[in-house]
Amino acid sequence: MNAKALRKISYGLYIVSSRLGDKLNGQIANTVFQVTSEPPKVAVCINKENFTHECIRSSWAFSVSVLRKEAPMTLIGRFGFMSGRDLNKFEGISYKIGKTGAPIVLDESVAYMEFIVTSTLDVGTHTIFVGELVDAELLSDEEVMTYDYYHKVKRGVSPEKAPTYMRER
Amino acid sequence: MNAKALRKISYGLYIVSSRLGDKLNGQIANTVFQVTSEPPKVAVCINKENFTHECIRSSWAFSVSVLRKEAPMTLIGRFGFMSGRDLNKFEGISYKIGKTGAPIVLDESVAYMEFIVTSTLDVGTHTIFVGELVDAELLSDEEVMTYDYYHKVKRGVSPEKAPTYMRER
Repeated sequence: MNAKALRKISYGLYIVSSRLGDKLNGQIANTVFQVTSEPPKVAVCINKENFTHECIRSSWAFSVSVLRKEAPMTLIGRFGFMSGRDLNKFEGISYKIGKTGAPIVLDESVAYMEFIVTSTLDVGTHTIFVGELVDAELLSDEEVMTYDYYHKVKRGVSPEKAPTYMRER
Repeated sequence: MNAKALRKISYGLYIVSSRLGDKLNGQIANTVFQVTSEPPKVAVCINKENFTHECIRSSWAFSVSVLRKEAPMTLIGRFGFMSGRDLNKFEGISYKIGKTGAPIVLDESVAYMEFIVTSTLDVGTHTIFVGELVDAELLSDEEVMTYDYYHKVKRGVSPEKAPTYMRER
């Protein structure tokens, strides 16, 4: 068995945001995918230890910002490798509060979508949250960042809590 | 609201295969994504009307073949736009029977993975099947087919039953 086959699955790169009371939070995620078209529903997969998990379970809403291809590593580092429990990731970032109350990152994003959670599935270390589309906008015509581009060209790495994390053995 | 924002989500292109008794079946899918790394689990989203749905619900196993970038439209047409209820899609195709009993398409694939279903989530028109990895192999170093490439370069379309189908209005 060669588990590296899993690396052949394609993804984009996104910021999934939510809130816990007054506290805004967001994190980098690659596992975002549409699951139905009528009505439009999207699933995201979030590590149970992440603050975003706590936020979505509290507010039952989340937003997804689709990162542009050339989004800087500083933004990805801030949202991907730090915890919103320790800092306000939105300080100095262009964002707005969406219809669901979830924050939406506008910086470096080509599009955003906003969802109300309709169901969840416990898959072990992570939870799949399925949300129905409440709002969505295109922000730019630029190409999107893919997970492949992030790894191969931007030389980005995956945090240990990512669904696609693979220990180097 | 502009639901075209949903089109900014990135996917690959895969053949998801399963069986119902002696009958082998497979279909094109774009919604395949890893949801945990310890243990490795993958989710696929399948339309309830598709024969593959019936097969997975019967055998509780499925395989995923990752299509290479230049996989021909004839193969995609066969697995994506015809029903395995009416024809044997595997006739003349290079495949093998995996450890779970699910057929695995080897033609035009850079990698395959095989899963036993561990949980399911009903999301309306579709079901999300989550499976734990049983076997996996890399078959080639070639680039993978992305959903974006399929649409933009290969000029492929999405069938109405795809999770990402969008009616032109």
